[in-house]
Amino acid sequence: MARAWNLKSRPTGMPTMDNFEFGETPLPALDDGMVHVRNRWLSVDPYMRGRMNDVKSYVPPFQIGAPLEGGAVGEVVESKDPNFVAGDWVLHMAGWRDEAVVPGQALNKLPQIPGVEPQAFLGNLGLTGGTAYWGLLDAAQAKAGDIVFVSAAAGAVGSAVVQIAKAKGMMVIGSAGGAEKCEFVKSLGADAVVDYKSGTPLVKALAEAAPKGIDVYFDNVGGDHLDAAFAVARRNARFAICGMIDSYNSGEPATFRYIMRVIAMRIMLKGFIYTDYLGRNAEFYGEMGPWVAGGQVKSRDTVVEGLEKTPEAFLGLFSGKNTGKMLVRL
Amino acid sequence: MARAWNLKSRPTGMPTMDNFEFGETPLPALDDGMVHVRNRWLSVDPYMRGRMNDVKSYVPPFQIGAPLEGGAVGEVVESKDPNFVAGDWVLHMAGWRDEAVVPGQALNKLPQIPGVEPQAFLGNLGLTGGTAYWGLLDAAQAKAGDIVFVSAAAGAVGSAVVQIAKAKGMMVIGSAGGAEKCEFVKSLGADAVVDYKSGTPLVKALAEAAPKGIDVYFDNVGGDHLDAAFAVARRNARFAICGMIDSYNSGEPATFRYIMRVIAMRIMLKGFIYTDYLGRNAEFYGEMGPWVAGGQVKSRDTVVEGLEKTPEAFLGLFSGKNTGKMLVRL
Repeated sequence: MARAWNLKSRPTGMPTMDNFEFGETPLPALDDGMVHVRNRWLSVDPYMRGRMNDVKSYVPPFQIGAPLEGGAVGEVVESKDPNFVAGDWVLHMAGWRDEAVVPGQALNKLPQIPGVEPQAFLGNLGLTGGTAYWGLLDAAQAKAGDIVFVSAAAGAVGSAVVQIAKAKGMMVIGSAGGAEKCEFVKSLGADAVVDYKSGTPLVKALAEAAPKGIDVYFDNVGGDHLDAAFAVARRNARFAICGMIDSYNSGEPATFRYIMRVIAMRIMLKGFIYTDYLGRNAEFYGEMGPWVAGGQVKSRDTVVEGLEKTPEAFLGLFSGKNTGKMLVRL
Repeated sequence: MARAWNLKSRPTGMPTMDNFEFGETPLPALDDGMVHVRNRWLSVDPYMRGRMNDVKSYVPPFQIGAPLEGGAVGEVVESKDPNFVAGDWVLHMAGWRDEAVVPGQALNKLPQIPGVEPQAFLGNLGLTGGTAYWGLLDAAQAKAGDIVFVSAAAGAVGSAVVQIAKAKGMMVIGSAGGAEKCEFVKSLGADAVVDYKSGTPLVKALAEAAPKGIDVYFDNVGGDHLDAAFAVARRNARFAICGMIDSYNSGEPATFRYIMRVIAMRIMLKGFIYTDYLGRNAEFYGEMGPWVAGGQVKSRDTVVEGLEKTPEAFLGLFSGKNTGKMLVRL
């Protein structure tokens, strides 16, 4: 038997503990090709909120009465897939539970990178860091010497963007809300910081922080941040569109005063999703692995102890209980 | 002496005849490297309205008391540049006048393409067709089999986009305002037409015209048209942003309900300007020349006779006096 968190009901607005139910579920038989895994680390991420709704999106919705899913790192207990043996560390999506029997095809063996701990594959070597890495370097085609603006720079993805950009020789301006978060962004190496809660209009604050304009914008926010990026973009600027959290929450249509600059400045915008790049993981591990091991790209994790606390950890994402990546240790 | 139209005053809002002044100006001396040209065809284009303002844009403003500028096709009268001889047909920017002395470096000799008339280099083999060609094929990376949506499809650029897309084996949906313009778009070969004046909400009308969604959007309009394109875009859709006439006129910020689909659908947007592609004219003439000569890409020109009528022709662009490309014959 595995212990798991099931989706009990779909939330309207902010999710609560009532939407989750803890229970025991039998493990499937260990047929040929299947692998029995004991989870050690679970990831909780904001995107999971979307999967709690019954709507079509780029990931299918969670099912009522079934365990939730999410990134997990565990150890192989027993394997009927010749590619795995007991003791292997693996990354997979059967999170929100302590044990799982999953097809070997759905498992990724963690690569051996000296100095890297297994939970890094849920953070800077997983969805968080991969989103930052591919968004910045592929979707936005950022290169050494570029002036990069990143919104929500104190968040898990944003702080990875700041550090990757510095490791690659770019100039970085990060936005964050409040003095404490802005200090944190500076401590990551950002050349300038914009405090969007300071009362100064964002376009003005950004124009002061980036007097020469910006070549790249990494968008986690949408709305006013995206409009300010349009306002200060230089010729041939490239925008990676990763998230538009402003619009998720407000439900209001987004309004842009400066979108016409797309033409005069020949701006390119590109929406992207991390999973499109899974086929290029070797490339990603090859560059990001040494940065994580060497401390050039650091993670400020918030670790919650015990499977029982998983929904609490998840809900904490929406009330600011975490700094950096939120993890559950089993 | 040349006869020319000078900018008398800068318009506020819609330009009028009072903003123009007709006069004689002495021609500069024919020094080494200079060429004396007699103009035969002048182009008037909507973008010239922007150059009447004293604001920084991607083309510098016209100067008060000096002749306006614009695309012109003429014949060489006398040349002190070894690259040109009397009788050569040339394309240049010293329009709004009957004669000019210009540096040979600022002249382009018209290529010899059998069956093509010289004024085509002000239309489908010039700014109009080049904007359509490069926007569709380079900025939006459109290819055979794509479903293409183009706004303002009855306009000069839009109708070239429709015909190029069909020549390249794409499916095309065009938008236009009113039954007559929609009929014209169909006559160009469009597979479906959306009448944005029909009263049906644009998103709904476009979803019906493109039940499988769209792969490419060629934007001449911005605003609701761009939002509708976000709403129906398929995965990896590409948008070429050519103009946002909705926003030029209203002065209101643009509002988008569907911009978040940029992420889920991995949409790419690219602003572009025709002049960026002048270095690739040989490529453009090589493909577009035979289409124009063979009638696969047609132009429905409105021809006004006489230099005296140039401002009138220009003003006519804003009151719908033209169908297709507006030209002045000298």
